[in-house]
Amino acid sequence: MDEQSFTTSRRALLGGAAVGAAAMVPGVASAARSGDIAAIRRAVDAGLGASVQRIQDWIRSPTIAAERHRIDEGVAHMSKLARDAGFQKVRAVPTGGVPAVFATLDAGAPKWMGIYFMYDVKQFDPAEWSVPPLEARIVDRPGVGKVVMGRGAVNQKGPEGAFLAALHAFKASGRKLPVNIALIAEGEEEIASPNFLNAIRDPEVLATMKRCVGVIIPSAGQAPNGNATITLGAKGAVEMEIVSSSKSWGRGPAKDIHSSQFARVDSPAWRLVQALGTLMGPDGHTPAVEGFFEHVRPLTARQKALIAEGARKGSEADAKKALGVQRWIKDETWEQSLERLASQPTINIQGLVSGYTGQGGKTILPHRAVAKVEMRLVPDMTRDDSVAKLKAHLAKRGFPDVEVNVTGGYGPTQTPENSALIKAQQAVLTRAGVPYALNVRSAGSWPGVVFTGDPLRLPAGQFGIGMGGGAHAPDEYFVIESSNPKVAGLVEQTMAYADLLYEIAAQA
Amino acid sequence: MDEQSFTTSRRALLGGAAVGAAAMVPGVASAARSGDIAAIRRAVDAGLGASVQRIQDWIRSPTIAAERHRIDEGVAHMSKLARDAGFQKVRAVPTGGVPAVFATLDAGAPKWMGIYFMYDVKQFDPAEWSVPPLEARIVDRPGVGKVVMGRGAVNQKGPEGAFLAALHAFKASGRKLPVNIALIAEGEEEIASPNFLNAIRDPEVLATMKRCVGVIIPSAGQAPNGNATITLGAKGAVEMEIVSSSKSWGRGPAKDIHSSQFARVDSPAWRLVQALGTLMGPDGHTPAVEGFFEHVRPLTARQKALIAEGARKGSEADAKKALGVQRWIKDETWEQSLERLASQPTINIQGLVSGYTGQGGKTILPHRAVAKVEMRLVPDMTRDDSVAKLKAHLAKRGFPDVEVNVTGGYGPTQTPENSALIKAQQAVLTRAGVPYALNVRSAGSWPGVVFTGDPLRLPAGQFGIGMGGGAHAPDEYFVIESSNPKVAGLVEQTMAYADLLYEIAAQA
Repeated sequence: MDEQSFTTSRRALLGGAAVGAAAMVPGVASAARSGDIAAIRRAVDAGLGASVQRIQDWIRSPTIAAERHRIDEGVAHMSKLARDAGFQKVRAVPTGGVPAVFATLDAGAPKWMGIYFMYDVKQFDPAEWSVPPLEARIVDRPGVGKVVMGRGAVNQKGPEGAFLAALHAFKASGRKLPVNIALIAEGEEEIASPNFLNAIRDPEVLATMKRCVGVIIPSAGQAPNGNATITLGAKGAVEMEIVSSSKSWGRGPAKDIHSSQFARVDSPAWRLVQALGTLMGPDGHTPAVEGFFEHVRPLTARQKALIAEGARKGSEADAKKALGVQRWIKDETWEQSLERLASQPTINIQGLVSGYTGQGGKTILPHRAVAKVEMRLVPDMTRDDSVAKLKAHLAKRGFPDVEVNVTGGYGPTQTPENSALIKAQQAVLTRAGVPYALNVRSAGSWPGVVFTGDPLRLPAGQFGIGMGGGAHAPDEYFVIESSNPKVAGLVEQTMAYADLLYEIAAQA
Repeated sequence: MDEQSFTTSRRALLGGAAVGAAAMVPGVASAARSGDIAAIRRAVDAGLGASVQRIQDWIRSPTIAAERHRIDEGVAHMSKLARDAGFQKVRAVPTGGVPAVFATLDAGAPKWMGIYFMYDVKQFDPAEWSVPPLEARIVDRPGVGKVVMGRGAVNQKGPEGAFLAALHAFKASGRKLPVNIALIAEGEEEIASPNFLNAIRDPEVLATMKRCVGVIIPSAGQAPNGNATITLGAKGAVEMEIVSSSKSWGRGPAKDIHSSQFARVDSPAWRLVQALGTLMGPDGHTPAVEGFFEHVRPLTARQKALIAEGARKGSEADAKKALGVQRWIKDETWEQSLERLASQPTINIQGLVSGYTGQGGKTILPHRAVAKVEMRLVPDMTRDDSVAKLKAHLAKRGFPDVEVNVTGGYGPTQTPENSALIKAQQAVLTRAGVPYALNVRSAGSWPGVVFTGDPLRLPAGQFGIGMGGGAHAPDEYFVIESSNPKVAGLVEQTMAYADLLYEIAAQA
C-alpha cells in the first residue's frame, strides 16, 4: 500500500465515524452491517472505561507458568473473562501441564471462528521497571499516547482485552454475533507451549475447533509508521542440546582432569567438535544431515513474487545496519537474502560450552561438552522427522553416544493466502485504512502448527491493529489512546475485531 | 628402589647422625667431606630456629605478580635474603615485567652451580583458609608433623628457605662452599614467566649461567610414602585462544542477533567448529596440523625401558581410579598409556565458549566463538615453530581470519640422565635413604626450557626432599618437623642441599 492510499485511509482509521463509515469503501459491507457497526462503535466508546479496567485487572492477576505461579487463579480469571464476554460454556482443559481454558459462544451463526488466547505472562524483575509491573498504571508516553504499562500489557492481555471488548460491545448494543466463537486459552505459552497440543486433542475441543473457519491470535500488529504485516506462515523451531560426555561415551575422564592427560585419555570436547562437524556442509550454513531437505517444499512463484515485492519496499541498507551485517551468506543479493530468510531450513549454534569458560586458560581436559543448537524448519518438515534424522545421522557417522536432548520446539506453520481468514484480514485492514504487507513466512517462530498442522489443519495467524512494546522486557506497554495519527488505539483495535467477525462471516 | 632398600635407608634419613654419617655409604664421600658434613649438620641444627624464622618472614612479605602487588618489596626482600646467605653480588635485573634478582656467590671453587628461585606467590582468598594466609603460623598437622602454613609455604619459599639454610650453615660452620653459586630469582613465575628469558639474556647473567654445571629449583619432592622422583624432562605447554569472530572474518553479525537470521547471515560459531575440525585427526587425539610431528624425537630404548619399569612399579587400577578413566586412548595397555603420556604431543581443548552458555537455550546467532586450546610439546618441538605451523595450517585450510592468540607457554625441557646434575641428585637421594624413580618426562609442564634450551642448554630440574601441600590452594603448608618417618623435615632437606653441592663438585 503506497503513501497516497495510506493518507486517505488514515482518516478512515482515525475519524470518530470512520470505522462506522465502512460502507464508504465501495462494495465491501452491506448497509445493514454498516448500521450494526455504527451501533457497536457507540457501545465500544461507551464501554472504553470498562475495557481498560478489564485489561488492568487482568495484568494485576499474573500467571507465570515457569514458576507455576497462580495457576488456579489464572484459570479462574480467564474463565470469568470468557463468561462475562458472553461465552455460554467455559471449562478448564487438563493438558498434563498448566490447564487450558476452553469456551464456546454459540450465537446460532452458521460458522465458527477460532480464537487463541494465552493467559500466562513472562517473568519480570520489578527493579528493572520504571513503574511497578503489576499495577497496570496508565502512563503518558511521549509520541505514543496513553498506554497501560505492566507485565503482559501487549503480550498478550491488551490485544486479548481488545477482542473481548468487541464481544462486550456486541452484547451491549444488542447485536447478534455474525459467527460463533471457540476460544482456547493457553496457560503456558511463555514456556513454549509444551502441552498445548493435548488441549487441542480433547475430544470436545477438537470437534469444535475443527468446525472453525480459522484461528486468530489477537495482537497489536502495527509498527510506529502505522504499517501492519499479514504473515502467512512461520518457520518451525526445535531447540536442543547436543552433548558429548565421558558418561555416555564410556571414554574420557569422569570429571575434568589435568590437561596433560589428553596424551592418553580421550576428549569429549574434541568428540563434540567432530560430531558437530558432520552436521554442517563445507559452506558453513547448509545443513549436511542426511535427508534434511527431503520434505522441503520450494517457494512458489507467488511466494517469490511477494518476497520480491518486499525486497523492493524494504531497505537492504537499513536491514544490514540493524543486524550489524556487512554481507549476506555467499554475498547474495537483498532479494536472495529475503528468499533465504523465508525458505532456508537451518541448524544454528546458539552456544558452545565446555570445560573452562572464564578469562584466560586453565589446564584441564573437560569431561563434557555441549552445543546449544536450534533447527528452523520450513514446510513440510516436521519436528519429529527432523530430530529423528539428526539422531540417525550422528549414529551413522559414528557418534551414537552423542546425545541430542530436545528441550522444546515445533514444526513450521503456513496459512494459504487465499484462505477466508487471510482475505478477511486484508479486507478489514483495507477498510480501516491500515497499510499492510503480506509476509510469506516469518523466519521467527510461533507454535501455529498446533492449529495449521495435524489434526486441525486450519488457517491461523496473529491479527490486530494498535501497538505496544516491551514484550519480555521491562516497561511493557499497550497503547490505549494513540497520539500517533498512524497508529490505532484501543477503540479502533476493538472495532477491527468486530469488523473481522463480520468479514469472516461474509468471506468464509 | 624396592621396599627392602628403603627400610635400610630410611634409617639413614632419620637418624640424628644419619646424614652426617654419609661416609657409611661406601665409596661415595671422602673422610674430609664426612667431617665437613658433620660440622654443617651441627650448624643446621643450631640454625634451625633462624631458618624457620627466615621462611616465616618471607611468607609474611608476599609479592603477587598478577596484581603487581609489592614488587619493590619483593625485590628488596629477595636481595636481602641473598646477601644474608653470603652472595657477594646481588642486583635486580629488569625483564620488561617484574624484575628478576641475580646474585653470585663466588667461593673460589672451580665450578659454578645455578639455582633458580621464584619470589612471587599465587593469589589467595583468606576466607578459604583455616589460618590467616600471611601469618606463617606453625601448625601441628596430624600424621604430617609441625608445618609452617601460609601462602608460598611450599611453592616455593619453604624449599628455597631450606636451600638458603644450607648456605647459612656453610658460613656458620666456617666451611668453604664446594661450588660457586649463581642464583637467579624470578618475580612472575605465577603468571607463567612471560619475561624470564629476558633476565637470562642479561649479559652478566648469561655469561655466569653459562659457566654453571646445571640448575636446580629447590622443591619439596617427597610423596607421603617417602618416595621421590627425579624427572628428566617435561613437555612444553603453549596456551592460546582460537577465536572466530565476525570482526576478523568480515562476515556474520557484529553482535549476537536473533538466530532466525542464520538463514542469511554467516555464523562464526560454525566457522570455529570447522576450523577446529581441521586441527584434529579422525581418531580424535592425533593432531592433524601439517608438519606438527616434524621435529618430534622418538623415545630412546633407555627411555622406553624406564617407562616400562615405571609401569611395573605403578598401579594401572589406581591411576584409572584417580583419573576417573575407564580406558586409555585406543584401549591401549598401561605401559602404552605411560609411553603416550611421555611422548605424545597434544592439542587439547580446555574450553569452548560461544553465544549463550546458561541454562536451556536462547535464540541467538553468536558473533564470536572461542576455543581455549593448549598444545603440549615434546623435544625437539619449539613453541614458536608449533604456533607458526598451527597458524599456517589454518590459513592453508581456508581459515586465515581465525585468530590464534597465544597467551603464554614455552617449549619442552629435557635433561640427560647421564648429566652430572642428575648423577649428583641420584647419589644424594641414595645416601639420604630416599627411594626414588627416574621419570623420563613429566606430562605436566614447567619452563625449564629457559635453562635447558637456547641460549643456555644446561641440565636443569627440580630437586629436594621434604614435603608440603596446598600449592595454589588454601592452607598451603611446608613440613618443618616431620612426624612421618618416611618423610624428611627441614633439617634433613637442608642437609640434602648441602650434600648436593658437594656431590656436584665431585661429579661434574
